[in-house]
Amino acid sequence: MRFVRYGEKGAEKPGVLDAQGRIRDLSGVIPDLAGAVLADLPRFDPETLPLVPGNPRLGPPVGQVGKFIGIGLNYADHAAESGMDAPAMPIVFMKATSSICGPNDPVYLPRNAKKGDWEVELGVVIGKTAKYVSEAEALDHVAGYCVVNDVSERAFQMELVGQWTKGKSADTFGPIGPWLVTPDEAGDPQNLDLSLDLNGARVQTGNTDTMIFTVAQIIAHLSGLMSLQPGDVIATGTPPGVGMGMKPQRFLAEGDVMELRIAGLGEQRQEVRRDA
Amino acid sequence: MRFVRYGEKGAEKPGVLDAQGRIRDLSGVIPDLAGAVLADLPRFDPETLPLVPGNPRLGPPVGQVGKFIGIGLNYADHAAESGMDAPAMPIVFMKATSSICGPNDPVYLPRNAKKGDWEVELGVVIGKTAKYVSEAEALDHVAGYCVVNDVSERAFQMELVGQWTKGKSADTFGPIGPWLVTPDEAGDPQNLDLSLDLNGARVQTGNTDTMIFTVAQIIAHLSGLMSLQPGDVIATGTPPGVGMGMKPQRFLAEGDVMELRIAGLGEQRQEVRRDA
Repeated sequence: MRFVRYGEKGAEKPGVLDAQGRIRDLSGVIPDLAGAVLADLPRFDPETLPLVPGNPRLGPPVGQVGKFIGIGLNYADHAAESGMDAPAMPIVFMKATSSICGPNDPVYLPRNAKKGDWEVELGVVIGKTAKYVSEAEALDHVAGYCVVNDVSERAFQMELVGQWTKGKSADTFGPIGPWLVTPDEAGDPQNLDLSLDLNGARVQTGNTDTMIFTVAQIIAHLSGLMSLQPGDVIATGTPPGVGMGMKPQRFLAEGDVMELRIAGLGEQRQEVRRDA
Repeated sequence: MRFVRYGEKGAEKPGVLDAQGRIRDLSGVIPDLAGAVLADLPRFDPETLPLVPGNPRLGPPVGQVGKFIGIGLNYADHAAESGMDAPAMPIVFMKATSSICGPNDPVYLPRNAKKGDWEVELGVVIGKTAKYVSEAEALDHVAGYCVVNDVSERAFQMELVGQWTKGKSADTFGPIGPWLVTPDEAGDPQNLDLSLDLNGARVQTGNTDTMIFTVAQIIAHLSGLMSLQPGDVIATGTPPGVGMGMKPQRFLAEGDVMELRIAGLGEQRQEVRRDA
């Protein structure tokens, strides 16, 4: 199943796509795609639900995100382009949950931002509380998968003294969606093509089969450090092709358009603007 | 005013202390000490409210925390004992919001934890959304102050490859409270004595007047990197005396008792246990 949240920001309603890709209204069945609902998503024929008219805005396909966790340098080639060795364990940072926005909302560069950058990533949405889970049982705790753009400001991340979260947390730096795709429909999370186009030109291409740490390994590692709860989102790292790694480096400017795709998980499109 | 949240974990009700320090039930006035309520906390004579009987558990005095932000090495002496230079800008990391617990709840060391440590800190609770605020206007966005124990696992923080959040985020690593004290009653946030006793012996002593970055400077800095929302909590750094800085180093063991105090903000007491 492919779930969505649609409507105005902060007032999204839950929906599900039917066989023709049209949104059906789920709000009579569940209050939201959030919290405990994620542990047991409804399964049924979407055609029985009311059709949502028009072409509403899509929000992030999960609400009330408690933790928005990023994994750094998780593709060997991306680590190389960043000038860093492949890590021995997953690198873990947090994005502020207030950075989360819809998949096609504009991305706003903060005042003073000079090095805005893009990162297409496989997003993992936790469905069941995970604490001290083994790699073998880790994927049982996943509600579904989604596209994430781990938008970053490299000067904030690297040059402002202390911890990557500084460059990962601005408002609109976390587009999520369009869909939350259940594991049965998403298929093997370690064999998904992903890409990002900047202004129509391909800049990132990869497949999750080159991740250094698999989704299951990441969940197992994290669950030994903290508990993971329904609605937590993990962005699992990005393949090569970010602006920081280009020669010369290329950073986001007003008017740029980012288009992200992961096979089976849908597409995002963001225009870049700048905070007044 | 001194606000509390009391009752079983996850079902806390809002309360306020009367002149004799007894809890009065606020649940008929506000739904919770959370979100937009924090922008305009009720002001009135607590004696008009029902007395809460008995001696209920205290929870964290703010609910629905969106971001739990830590500031590293913010006391010059603590930076020195950690073997690090005083930073040129605030060091910012995130604690998982799932680490938050009540001020007197037990602290559980995770499996494999070897270097559990304590950090008494002044906590700042945001009351009004702050984005691009100046140092001069920063404190207008504060709902109140509280005691925070920024419990840390130093091996997770420093030796597990990548970003401090790993050692700051275990369940129960974020005792907050007992009280949310409004700014008018807390007084100057840059002149508060704070201390921590381990098993009855004083190990940390300090005053917020030796902070490298003031509360106002921290809020201004953060608000240029991300927006701060009502209910966000900032732990503003710890004075000297953590276990990592002792010679020889001293880390938490089962049965240890931590007692924390900040002048005017109340006391915490936690017993240390270990996850089975």
